[in-house]
Amino acid sequence: MSNRSYGILGTGALGGYYGAKLQRAGLDVHFLLHSDYEHVCQHGLVVESPDGDFTLPRVNAYQDAAKMPPCDVVAIALKTTQNHLLPQMLHSVVKDDGVVLVLQNGLGVEAEVAEIVGSQRVIGGLCFLCSNKVGAGHIHHLDYGEIKLGEYTPDYSPGGITGRMRQIANDFENAGIPIQLAEDLLLARWQKLVWNIPYNGLSVVLNATTDELMADSHTCTLVKQLMDEVVAGAKACDRIIPDSFVQKMLDYTLKMKPYRTSMKIDYDEKRQMEVETMFGNPLRIAKAAGGNLSQITMLYQQLKFLDARNRHN
Amino acid sequence: MSNRSYGILGTGALGGYYGAKLQRAGLDVHFLLHSDYEHVCQHGLVVESPDGDFTLPRVNAYQDAAKMPPCDVVAIALKTTQNHLLPQMLHSVVKDDGVVLVLQNGLGVEAEVAEIVGSQRVIGGLCFLCSNKVGAGHIHHLDYGEIKLGEYTPDYSPGGITGRMRQIANDFENAGIPIQLAEDLLLARWQKLVWNIPYNGLSVVLNATTDELMADSHTCTLVKQLMDEVVAGAKACDRIIPDSFVQKMLDYTLKMKPYRTSMKIDYDEKRQMEVETMFGNPLRIAKAAGGNLSQITMLYQQLKFLDARNRHN
Repeated sequence: MSNRSYGILGTGALGGYYGAKLQRAGLDVHFLLHSDYEHVCQHGLVVESPDGDFTLPRVNAYQDAAKMPPCDVVAIALKTTQNHLLPQMLHSVVKDDGVVLVLQNGLGVEAEVAEIVGSQRVIGGLCFLCSNKVGAGHIHHLDYGEIKLGEYTPDYSPGGITGRMRQIANDFENAGIPIQLAEDLLLARWQKLVWNIPYNGLSVVLNATTDELMADSHTCTLVKQLMDEVVAGAKACDRIIPDSFVQKMLDYTLKMKPYRTSMKIDYDEKRQMEVETMFGNPLRIAKAAGGNLSQITMLYQQLKFLDARNRHN
Repeated sequence: MSNRSYGILGTGALGGYYGAKLQRAGLDVHFLLHSDYEHVCQHGLVVESPDGDFTLPRVNAYQDAAKMPPCDVVAIALKTTQNHLLPQMLHSVVKDDGVVLVLQNGLGVEAEVAEIVGSQRVIGGLCFLCSNKVGAGHIHHLDYGEIKLGEYTPDYSPGGITGRMRQIANDFENAGIPIQLAEDLLLARWQKLVWNIPYNGLSVVLNATTDELMADSHTCTLVKQLMDEVVAGAKACDRIIPDSFVQKMLDYTLKMKPYRTSMKIDYDEKRQMEVETMFGNPLRIAKAAGGNLSQITMLYQQLKFLDARNRHN
């Protein structure tokens, strides 16, 4: 077992799940909490999962990042809508030779983090996880859980597979978390957007679950068009996603159980949606590379309107 | 006063208003009704209007087009979603030398009517009218009312201004209905879509009034983009709409009182929306002419999804 210490910034459905798995495997884990702090100090964390339920009666809980010890690996598991807090949080919590693991959705967040901690200390992580926080310190893991790791480099050129990626992968795998290693973080991020952009966006605008979107011929075609635009955005960044990948995402979604996307859950709960990292950044990055994604632009504009109204009402 | 007889197919907010004005001016008018037939037979028509309220205690009411006398001018004032009824209705109700006046929204309806009655007997009419049916045979006129008339020709080439257009215009103007004569019906139809497509479509998808769409910078930009696509669709059909026209529509809407569009009212009332004539036909006509309107396509797909679900729930 490694002696790497882990800091978890944001102990929700995602950070709480992964952090609890790491601690259960014997690693030294430190959790930053906000609203659940008092409860978790007293009662710890509870994880329900088809892989087996478990409770951690005592965890290292903090409500101020400045009070956390410097960690070897700091996982950012906040919603990206909270990323304005990162400049204050990150400096003290990551060791000089430590690394920040960006476990968030969308595009371009690693670059923001690199501006704070330096580009040598950033790794991206794409989570394929289905979990909800159902109460204070209480996480319900539904399905999946794999993380795809990729090295960040200043211009998002492929960073290859490094020793520290393997070390982190080793810790996660020992904790029962499946890991994939990606040579090209930017390609992996664009690939994930192939699913996230159409389903998250349309589920909010049309108040629909994934199965409803797939059952209607018009929205099914629209989903495919939006996926093709994501592929075009990737191509503008010199990342090639084959048509077969798009088809795989469509087939996969057809077979999925009816699913309410994470963005739809945020919208329904009147929380700010991650529109900028999931739509705004890909659009800006594609545009800077000469790509014009007109239907994703329209979806972005619709979501911005709905997000603003949702939080003012 | 002319001795032309008028048939009104569809005695709702639009047909009821114009037909009542014509009858009040002394013309021979015949009204086709559906659900309001019994009530109107007994109580006639009531029009409330800022121009003066009036009642017509007795009108020529029919619930079967086959029982109407052949008329000189037959105005189609049904929702276009009812146009599958036209082949049965139209043959007997229009005189051999009569004319059908298509007072409906969208694009391409005249061509459908021409297939039934022949292309020599079709005139298009674009209504700029704000009125609601508030009860059986009871119409509330709110504002505006001008009709723009244009001759239909088989290939939508400009039909110029004809004698019969002037005759009909004369009848309407004598009845207090302002008329404009258009030399080019297709241009007039595309111009009207510059307003109708963005505001009708987005008002439904985003559950918004015109002022809400204009107050948000993202949807305001999206409205402009959609207008520009309508202009591009017109251009594919060799009809030039200047940028100044788009700006005029935006300025006009900014100054309007908060407005719930007709498509939004249909949606809220769970009636079928006029998606095909207002969105589907323009898209198909533009595509046949080589135009690709990707954001209007997306709006069409979203509306088709919402329309289907709205009527199944």
